[in-house]
Amino acid sequence: MRSGGGFGRRMEATSAATRLARQIEFIFEVDKLKEIFRQTINSQSRRPENDAEHSWHLCLCVITLAEHANAKSLDVLRVLKMLIVHDLVEIDAGDTFAYDTAAMADQHEREARAADRIFGLLPADQTNEFRGLWDEFEEKQTPEAKFATAVDRFQPMLLNCRTEGAAWKRHGITQDRVIARNQHIAEGCAELWRYAEKMVQGAVDAGHLKPAPQA
Amino acid sequence: MRSGGGFGRRMEATSAATRLARQIEFIFEVDKLKEIFRQTINSQSRRPENDAEHSWHLCLCVITLAEHANAKSLDVLRVLKMLIVHDLVEIDAGDTFAYDTAAMADQHEREARAADRIFGLLPADQTNEFRGLWDEFEEKQTPEAKFATAVDRFQPMLLNCRTEGAAWKRHGITQDRVIARNQHIAEGCAELWRYAEKMVQGAVDAGHLKPAPQA
Repeated sequence: MRSGGGFGRRMEATSAATRLARQIEFIFEVDKLKEIFRQTINSQSRRPENDAEHSWHLCLCVITLAEHANAKSLDVLRVLKMLIVHDLVEIDAGDTFAYDTAAMADQHEREARAADRIFGLLPADQTNEFRGLWDEFEEKQTPEAKFATAVDRFQPMLLNCRTEGAAWKRHGITQDRVIARNQHIAEGCAELWRYAEKMVQGAVDAGHLKPAPQA
Repeated sequence: MRSGGGFGRRMEATSAATRLARQIEFIFEVDKLKEIFRQTINSQSRRPENDAEHSWHLCLCVITLAEHANAKSLDVLRVLKMLIVHDLVEIDAGDTFAYDTAAMADQHEREARAADRIFGLLPADQTNEFRGLWDEFEEKQTPEAKFATAVDRFQPMLLNCRTEGAAWKRHGITQDRVIARNQHIAEGCAELWRYAEKMVQGAVDAGHLKPAPQA
């Protein structure tokens, strides 16, 4: 069976090389994430943040803040994987501003089509794995998805507060909408939400965020 | 002991809040990583890549390519943590171009001072943890550090090849220097190095990278 074994090994080597080539095409395709710009601005240059930078910043938040998660035992690797891929769909679907309720109406449909194409570039087992991570993030039911969501909501609030509320002012966002949009942070990390509430009140007190309009 | 218990709990709460506040100052400080620009350019806009985007792209490489690591059982979480923090020192020390041998002479010293300051912003246990991750990455001895290094070297090569060798041309880099600088990829991921060698030869054949000068 030696020659058959040799053939088998060659087939295996070819298949591994094809698999790697496909994975690298995926890695190259998602380089595009660096050109998807968000509403939030960075603290130093005051230019809009892009999705790739944002995704890195969230990963950094996770490894720094994981101890504060509501869940006693959190699968930190799973949280990181989720956040590394969570915005890839925006390569096709674009960034949807968190307070743009019109664009949010068909957001999930647009993003699900993007997920089909982009995760579909990978070998089938990884298409399923990465799509599973994205679905889990979107459904926000597991402790890992809840914590990932908490940092995904907290980080833009932090940047907004430290840039004198630039993105909020530009879109006329008021305190009540910030609270309504972001209070889900508490489901993943109650302690972080307590911090965020005080931070937002600080922004109102400093005149960087308007209070709720009077009824 | 009820009142003593109450006092103890208040002390604990205060200490947890202080700890969180300190961690958030660290998270805000490293927002600066988004303004540290590298020699490599992104494939779409052709503008220089920054360290934050680069760090995210490496994390994506890790979760896509981990199966190809030389090490049979790789601690993927540790690799990710290493890569999330590996470039933070450049906030103070700046990016050192991989082929700038003059700047590389005192690079480690400059970066070690930066590590003291930046990781020192965290609570002491995390200062030690993150500094340990950075030291491990720098020493390149563990399977995790070797794999992290492999993707850190491969990703710029991929972007250079897909941007017609822009960064190589600008600095007059030749094939022999690319090989000498990056062959350590094989120590973490032999299969990725086999791919990289062919990719580099393809860049030479296409006229995007000069062959070694004749002796």
